[in-house]
Amino acid sequence: MTTLVREPAEFRRACDDARADSSRVGLVPTMGALHEGHFSLIDEAKNRADFVAVTIFVNPLQFGPSEDLDRYPRTLESDLAGCRERGVDLVFVPARESMYSAQFQTHVSIEELSKPLEGECRPEHFDGVTTVVAKLFNLAGPCAAMFGRKDYQQWKILSRMARDLDMPIEVVGCPIVREPDGLALSSRNRYLSATERKRALGIASGLRRAHDAWHEGERNPATLRSFAQEPVQSEFDGVDYVAAVDPDTLMAAAPSPSRLLIAVAAHLGTTRLIDNVVLGEDPRP
Amino acid sequence: MTTLVREPAEFRRACDDARADSSRVGLVPTMGALHEGHFSLIDEAKNRADFVAVTIFVNPLQFGPSEDLDRYPRTLESDLAGCRERGVDLVFVPARESMYSAQFQTHVSIEELSKPLEGECRPEHFDGVTTVVAKLFNLAGPCAAMFGRKDYQQWKILSRMARDLDMPIEVVGCPIVREPDGLALSSRNRYLSATERKRALGIASGLRRAHDAWHEGERNPATLRSFAQEPVQSEFDGVDYVAAVDPDTLMAAAPSPSRLLIAVAAHLGTTRLIDNVVLGEDPRP
Repeated sequence: MTTLVREPAEFRRACDDARADSSRVGLVPTMGALHEGHFSLIDEAKNRADFVAVTIFVNPLQFGPSEDLDRYPRTLESDLAGCRERGVDLVFVPARESMYSAQFQTHVSIEELSKPLEGECRPEHFDGVTTVVAKLFNLAGPCAAMFGRKDYQQWKILSRMARDLDMPIEVVGCPIVREPDGLALSSRNRYLSATERKRALGIASGLRRAHDAWHEGERNPATLRSFAQEPVQSEFDGVDYVAAVDPDTLMAAAPSPSRLLIAVAAHLGTTRLIDNVVLGEDPRP
Repeated sequence: MTTLVREPAEFRRACDDARADSSRVGLVPTMGALHEGHFSLIDEAKNRADFVAVTIFVNPLQFGPSEDLDRYPRTLESDLAGCRERGVDLVFVPARESMYSAQFQTHVSIEELSKPLEGECRPEHFDGVTTVVAKLFNLAGPCAAMFGRKDYQQWKILSRMARDLDMPIEVVGCPIVREPDGLALSSRNRYLSATERKRALGIASGLRRAHDAWHEGERNPATLRSFAQEPVQSEFDGVDYVAAVDPDTLMAAAPSPSRLLIAVAAHLGTTRLIDNVVLGEDPRP
């Protein structure tokens, strides 16, 4: 049975009860508009825990003033149906006011890892993410929490937060789930027109070219980056970044690295998409 | 029996074991150099919990570059003896490196409450406090944590942090413990020369004058502040602030408030002392 709760105190109590019953709690924090990417996180949570809690909260703290907070897709009914189908135990859907009181003034922030890539394009974004996830961790007390590696930097930042603040929680990064043609699943894909949907493949195609070049022995980060960049540049309306960086520090990679993160953020009309691949580690996108 | 542990993982395990044994864990975070003020926190923890953990860590993160980190008193042997005598179950004395790895980069910060008073004199101080206390909370998983109200602002900030981040922890502020002549106990009192020790009474004497005036019906914050300020001004070498503010927001008080925080920070030679009273609430200092 899937239980829906709306109040933080109820959410805490349900997770406390599960733990008191010797269950290990697995947490899947989401902003809703669930797709197969999210469902893969739920499946992984079920592998690792006895009691799976999904949170659905479009967290205002992580949206910039000019971003898509208001139009972000809200599909609660079908999200709940999906959670039921996948055997989720508990779904937490808080109101904004019950997460952030009028006196709210606490922030968790990560210094270095939040500066490059998304941090340059979306200042304050990661402070919003770490703050809300710290709250969800403290409410749920999970043994493990699942995040998608499409938001690669987010996953690294949350892992760092858990380690730095001694949270007894394993922060698990799950593989990107893609459409058959390579497009990474994203709640924002539904913004795309039919034409934009085709052009969106520019990212996967760029990542694949970099992956193939790596496979053929290319190790120069700048060269690999330019392979990825070309189709993005030609298909997208604007490119925030195509970066080739160290997968752990997110800073400049070694000249001939053993692993390399290629990360992309680009715009099609008013829609912003991100994607990435870790060369030397991930399968072909 | 009082157990001493040095590694965060051991500390966590000992607290986990206590909780698994149905004990409620009470936490008393300190920087050591324990005095009767700290011991009153331990007593309160014993009232509220079955298992009392004291932490002793001179946290570098909360000291400014020109402050007294290096000369801060370290008296581990007598601290441990005191903990044994008071029936503390667990003492955690970590090394700096096991609290802050080379990659450490996470900070917890409180916006408004950390700005005035100590925040103006000691920028970054409270970020250091909230960050280390968040770590200690996550390691120990206490039901309650005790702090002295001599550090009134710190107590308010940590209460705010726990509430904002949904930490399931009661942050308890315990009454200031004073010498018979009124001087608030502080680890830093041992820095004072005999003459300075006498002049240090200027603070308690100022707080008492404000308290007496309040008792006689005075309600004007500026007037009450000036009563407190006079003896501090005349006895101390430098005054950081004598403030009369709202005890909850730490901002400007109402014109005729029902409670008023008088808070003082001042220097004698190289020693900086703080003290406070909440008029309408606290006994005569």
